[in-house]
Amino acid sequence: MKWLQSTDTDFESRLATLLSDRSAVETSVSTPVRDIIATIREQGDTALCDYTARFDRLSLAPEGLAITADEIAREADKVDADLMEALNLAASRIESFHRAQMPSNLAYQDEAGLTLGMRWTPLDAVGLYVPGGKAAYPSSVLMNALPARVAGVGRIAMCVPCPDGVLNPLVLAAARVCGVSEIYRVGGAQAVAALAYGTNSIRPVDRIVGPGNAYVAEAKRQVFGHVGIDSIAGPSEVVIVADNRNNPRFVALDLLAQAEHDELAQAVLITDDAGFARSVVEAVETELKTLPRAAIAGKSWTDHGAVVIVRDWNEAAEIANRFASEHLEVMLDDAEQFSTLIRHAGAMFLGRNCPEAVGDYVGGPNHVLPTSRTARFASGLSVFDFLKRTTTISAGADGLRAVGPAGVRLAKAEGLDAHALSLSARLDALG
Amino acid sequence: MKWLQSTDTDFESRLATLLSDRSAVETSVSTPVRDIIATIREQGDTALCDYTARFDRLSLAPEGLAITADEIAREADKVDADLMEALNLAASRIESFHRAQMPSNLAYQDEAGLTLGMRWTPLDAVGLYVPGGKAAYPSSVLMNALPARVAGVGRIAMCVPCPDGVLNPLVLAAARVCGVSEIYRVGGAQAVAALAYGTNSIRPVDRIVGPGNAYVAEAKRQVFGHVGIDSIAGPSEVVIVADNRNNPRFVALDLLAQAEHDELAQAVLITDDAGFARSVVEAVETELKTLPRAAIAGKSWTDHGAVVIVRDWNEAAEIANRFASEHLEVMLDDAEQFSTLIRHAGAMFLGRNCPEAVGDYVGGPNHVLPTSRTARFASGLSVFDFLKRTTTISAGADGLRAVGPAGVRLAKAEGLDAHALSLSARLDALG
Repeated sequence: MKWLQSTDTDFESRLATLLSDRSAVETSVSTPVRDIIATIREQGDTALCDYTARFDRLSLAPEGLAITADEIAREADKVDADLMEALNLAASRIESFHRAQMPSNLAYQDEAGLTLGMRWTPLDAVGLYVPGGKAAYPSSVLMNALPARVAGVGRIAMCVPCPDGVLNPLVLAAARVCGVSEIYRVGGAQAVAALAYGTNSIRPVDRIVGPGNAYVAEAKRQVFGHVGIDSIAGPSEVVIVADNRNNPRFVALDLLAQAEHDELAQAVLITDDAGFARSVVEAVETELKTLPRAAIAGKSWTDHGAVVIVRDWNEAAEIANRFASEHLEVMLDDAEQFSTLIRHAGAMFLGRNCPEAVGDYVGGPNHVLPTSRTARFASGLSVFDFLKRTTTISAGADGLRAVGPAGVRLAKAEGLDAHALSLSARLDALG
Repeated sequence: MKWLQSTDTDFESRLATLLSDRSAVETSVSTPVRDIIATIREQGDTALCDYTARFDRLSLAPEGLAITADEIAREADKVDADLMEALNLAASRIESFHRAQMPSNLAYQDEAGLTLGMRWTPLDAVGLYVPGGKAAYPSSVLMNALPARVAGVGRIAMCVPCPDGVLNPLVLAAARVCGVSEIYRVGGAQAVAALAYGTNSIRPVDRIVGPGNAYVAEAKRQVFGHVGIDSIAGPSEVVIVADNRNNPRFVALDLLAQAEHDELAQAVLITDDAGFARSVVEAVETELKTLPRAAIAGKSWTDHGAVVIVRDWNEAAEIANRFASEHLEVMLDDAEQFSTLIRHAGAMFLGRNCPEAVGDYVGGPNHVLPTSRTARFASGLSVFDFLKRTTTISAGADGLRAVGPAGVRLAKAEGLDAHALSLSARLDALG
């Protein structure tokens, strides 16, 4: 864990190091992924079954790629009632928030007499990648599928690897809650390739979303352009801005909730009180003694954790903006006021009783968020990922007379004579 | 030019071929681009000047990379008054439309007592790539810079290659109209690398937009993730849906306005009257005899042009949706009604007096649009490209009591104990 004070002479250089400390991570799987995609495009289901046998130790005929409705029902029914209730509450809150997000169409006539508009339409088909094994989180299924559903996407096809053929009841229960019934037991780059280009068994989709390992991320990068993708998620992070009136243990648990995700995760405390910060650090050490995922969380905290002592909250906000962090907790008296100083963050959690875990599950806003400082230019998953816009221009004779001549001049200046003629021939005919 | 009729027995397969005929275009410049980016990252301005000397035959010291305010003024003043008036009209219309596009923040308290919100904030800094030479279109400068300006982006840095040191008065005039004053005379992958990673002379930006050649497109692809990029533009296309009450010459000119862009451009007429279609094809041949860019337009029309004869307008709409074309002209009596059948298109042009060239210059909506069927999942450039969203959750004691227990259950089910503890420790304290 690094300890920085904004009054130190080397603060600026140490902060810069901290801001870039996880950005050198690069993958080197582009060649094998390129081969897998090419093979799926050439051989379709045959290759999909071959890869699944090899990587997931699961022998399937093409007819067995889809998980049947009976299998989904049987597995989902294994989930106990309390947990189903929690899943349903989460789903209903996520659905409400994303419904509130839905944008409106635009249409107006302007002073030149043209009618201008912008219409939002949903994608026809979306592919949802769900990681297998331990990283198969039912909450991720909700967070990825529900915005698509709310946006009005007609078809959601889900791929989830099932190593050794083992199905995950929680994931299938979450899919059922979201009304997703087209599910394939395939994963990796081969699943991404199948969703992007289609096989006999899996029809192609228009956009692929969802987290995955380095192969999945690289495959998404390579099919980008042919289909849409969501952003490539990097290691996760939280910045917590807290004053000394907080319970140090709560702050420590919030830091550890981030750190337990991944050894590369980053948890940062920004506070104006070094004594309070020391109490938090002690509480982190104490909790690490009993935390089940202490090995992961401890390494994350040691390697990437940080405490930044600031002069005041304005300085705290400026540093938080430079982190542009995925998650920003504001544990201050007037958290709302502080939040108006924030220009860059994936999601903010305001108040002493609003740990980031609220947002992971039951808050309503999406937990798929821009990582590694990409909140400078990127946003969390939302209905906007499953909608696209079509602009419209409607012009009658008067409208064309109003704007056409300027268009002719610009087209000629750009040397595009057919453009100019398409306008001037009509203007001539209108007289 | 291909001639398809929906009543032909081989229609489906011929349509499928037509839909995919330009999608095999691939670039093979990834290795040289990777080298250029790595060299710029290592050597900064020195490498930027070296590449500019080599590729643009222009020797510069780092201090000479920026085009000075005097140079901008001197060049922009060369543009004649009529053309400046046209540029200003275009700019004011583009600005108005994009202002109308600006979204609203969201904030509401829900029945559980949590306050949920979503805030839009502009990017801090954007890089605008403008191609050099013949492809340097002042209209592209307006279409890329104005949405960023309207969104509230603080800094817009423009790069434009200036082969042999020649400045383009129209491009600089357009930049001045948009209030862009930070302009560098560099281009290619080296310009993209400098914008993404920064050099001594060029501070890094958060997102890079604008068209470019294969090197520029590949460089944008490679820096994606570190910064945001706009979509990679492919060859352009128009689909024109027209009945036999149109002037065949106007339809022909609209087809050619698309075809004159690029030999790979595609212009498609969908109509229900084969006789009318033959008149349009004849008019295309006639216009090609005098069109200055006949070589390009003729090759595009021969290789990629198409006429599709349909039974009725519903079928026309369905086929237009499968094209998901960048531009869709609807030249029918009730163009508005027809447009409601369209699910996928970059931009629509409604009415007999609304050629696509209106939208290229003076309509108001953006002319940077999704090409090559990507309108299935992508949208034209807009203020949304220069904004990002931060979601907010604010919870007090009651809010946490309402949703916290479900969060604890889900966190435990996912094996994330610190997540669960961060909620349950607070719930315990609240009692």
